[in-house]
Amino acid sequence: MAKEGADMTEETEHMIEKNLGKEAENMESSSVDAKEMRAVILAGFGGLNKLRVTKKTMPEPQEGEVKIRVKACGLNFLDLMVRQGTIDSPPKPPVVPGFECSGIVESVGENTKGFEIGDRVMAFVNYNAWAEVVCTPVDFVYKMPDEMTFPEAAAFSLNFVAAYMMLFEVANLREGMSVLVHSAGGGVGQAVAQLCSTVPNVTVFGIASCFKHVAIRDSVTHLFDRNIDYVQEVKKISPEGVDIVLDCLCGENTGKGLGLLKPLGTYILYGASNMVTGETKSFFSFAKSWWQVEKVNPIKLYEENKVIAGFSLLNLLFKQGRCSLVKAVMEKLLSLYNQKKIKPVVDSLWALEEVKEAMQRIHDRGNIGKLILDVEKSPTPLMASDSTETSEAGEEEEEPEGDNDNKERMPFIH
Amino acid sequence: MAKEGADMTEETEHMIEKNLGKEAENMESSSVDAKEMRAVILAGFGGLNKLRVTKKTMPEPQEGEVKIRVKACGLNFLDLMVRQGTIDSPPKPPVVPGFECSGIVESVGENTKGFEIGDRVMAFVNYNAWAEVVCTPVDFVYKMPDEMTFPEAAAFSLNFVAAYMMLFEVANLREGMSVLVHSAGGGVGQAVAQLCSTVPNVTVFGIASCFKHVAIRDSVTHLFDRNIDYVQEVKKISPEGVDIVLDCLCGENTGKGLGLLKPLGTYILYGASNMVTGETKSFFSFAKSWWQVEKVNPIKLYEENKVIAGFSLLNLLFKQGRCSLVKAVMEKLLSLYNQKKIKPVVDSLWALEEVKEAMQRIHDRGNIGKLILDVEKSPTPLMASDSTETSEAGEEEEEPEGDNDNKERMPFIH
Repeated sequence: MAKEGADMTEETEHMIEKNLGKEAENMESSSVDAKEMRAVILAGFGGLNKLRVTKKTMPEPQEGEVKIRVKACGLNFLDLMVRQGTIDSPPKPPVVPGFECSGIVESVGENTKGFEIGDRVMAFVNYNAWAEVVCTPVDFVYKMPDEMTFPEAAAFSLNFVAAYMMLFEVANLREGMSVLVHSAGGGVGQAVAQLCSTVPNVTVFGIASCFKHVAIRDSVTHLFDRNIDYVQEVKKISPEGVDIVLDCLCGENTGKGLGLLKPLGTYILYGASNMVTGETKSFFSFAKSWWQVEKVNPIKLYEENKVIAGFSLLNLLFKQGRCSLVKAVMEKLLSLYNQKKIKPVVDSLWALEEVKEAMQRIHDRGNIGKLILDVEKSPTPLMASDSTETSEAGEEEEEPEGDNDNKERMPFIH
Repeated sequence: MAKEGADMTEETEHMIEKNLGKEAENMESSSVDAKEMRAVILAGFGGLNKLRVTKKTMPEPQEGEVKIRVKACGLNFLDLMVRQGTIDSPPKPPVVPGFECSGIVESVGENTKGFEIGDRVMAFVNYNAWAEVVCTPVDFVYKMPDEMTFPEAAAFSLNFVAAYMMLFEVANLREGMSVLVHSAGGGVGQAVAQLCSTVPNVTVFGIASCFKHVAIRDSVTHLFDRNIDYVQEVKKISPEGVDIVLDCLCGENTGKGLGLLKPLGTYILYGASNMVTGETKSFFSFAKSWWQVEKVNPIKLYEENKVIAGFSLLNLLFKQGRCSLVKAVMEKLLSLYNQKKIKPVVDSLWALEEVKEAMQRIHDRGNIGKLILDVEKSPTPLMASDSTETSEAGEEEEEPEGDNDNKERMPFIH
């Protein structure tokens, strides 16, 4: 089901070969050793070559934790920032990335109520989601509706909770309002568009790459190419501006977003994907971006009657302990799902071994909806036409990511 | 009814003497010429000596305007900032200050529907409120409830609309939340406290000068002296912080307020009274304050899940055309008033000729609730004990305002 299969094979080829050679047992951990599992490992901060699939000791649930046999994991832009180390207080590598998954409860720790073995669940995890098995506190686990598939569930939690909380908790979306959303084709963007449609008469201005426009045109009211001057285009349609701006890009878009707000409007920054600039010297790149962000004068907000907010669902969950609030939001969302008012959009499924191709796709903003790591999926087999490119295994090259046209992939380096 | 009568008499004495001598007709304009009226004039930006009562041509209502025979006017901290010129785009003096009043409809302009001669009304005015007669667009005029007095009505509009919109439109006050309010004894502070009491289980942390504590203790949950470290005191009671901070001071309080917010909490700046520092070189003082305000990094808001907002009701009304939204809010507020859930707190009534004493009182933060200019009130007569101080009339002295103990007043200078 993975799209653009022809694009992704070289790297996978090397990965499989290396794995079969050096650590063949990793690939079939469950048959070799019940206490081990496959997992994606980030060996250090940097480019795609910092990622590999390896065998790890399977975790056991502590008190208050649920052990989940993972079926599917969500891949988010934030995972690219983690890989580059461009987040606040990144964990010390090696680390298993991944913040959300769906699967089946395999066991529960002591004093863990509400779940039984065999329950189909989706869960937030503070890293470690991209593995065959994860353990996470019971507060971060939610039962899946019967009709929801595992990929849908892995695509649901982070994007819909974030979109809901931004629209209804941080801002106060009501009938007749207008919303501008960047990356309208992405997982959060599509969740925002669907949630806006649950409120009467909401106008959604979406910004997305041109090639996605046909696919997502029906989900928003107005759609603009990300390469045009969206400020002017929005003002042509709504000279007064918009009520809510949702920005995952940061940088110059912060000033533009604030400028587009109506009085009493709210600008919400929920990501900084412009910080992922492709440099391998990621920490420097991050620090530079941080200081280059335009700061906001509170007195200007006062004069203009504007609101600026930041929203990070992961910090809310894992640093700020707001899991009960998130649980309440999840209940509302599952109710909307059961009423068929919202439905996660899955872009594509990828094997764990294809994580680099998946990351490249999200980096290139090629996705429409969510990228899912399907733990039980085998890597897409090579096709004859994919063997034209050669690249020397073991060579540490500069990270090829970026908006350039060179889509060559690096070989898999252990 | 004006409090602290003994404090205010020198200036008034000079004012009356000078008026009687030089322009006696000003004091009884209505009997001399039906087309003239008394009004407070701000002759230029600066200290109290820039204010005087004079005779002006009475305005006539234009199309869509209501002409009001004024009974009472509200005096706000913002009027001090106007006097000093420390607001954004101040009007060119001479100007009649004042943004709100109550009174009786005397006539209406063409195409002005909804009001009849004799209606008791309260109104927002874009300057010119401190006069015997004002004209203002019909969109800014609201009928008073029968049981509301004119001073109450003049104390109602600006403070309660601002408090309501901040709590319920900008922030999203709900059951169980907590609110920190500076200047808890002031007009907005008391409105905030009353509105918070309409929502179940809201904790209000109020900050006010010690001498007000007895009077306002029952209106808030916790009360702190403005000279203590309120951050530490709040954290002792609520280590997690608060949900909403309402700040009319600005300066270092912005950083403190943001620091006190819980995740998803909202800091709202709705004034900058710390900018009124007492210098007569007000413009320089303003510019300095502006640049000294700590600016906010959006990425920090993102990491901390915080919201910062500015709120200026006057800009919303007069620059940003949101009068229909304000009208809807006013209807909710009048309903709460009629249910006896809220009631404006009037600190004291002052004659137009006592405007300087009234301003000094608000500058010194001596008020509990709202200061009202009562257009029909005569200046409080001199008492024997008030004549001990002499000051040479005509002398241009430095503005005596400030937090010092010297409460001498300047003579009235024309």
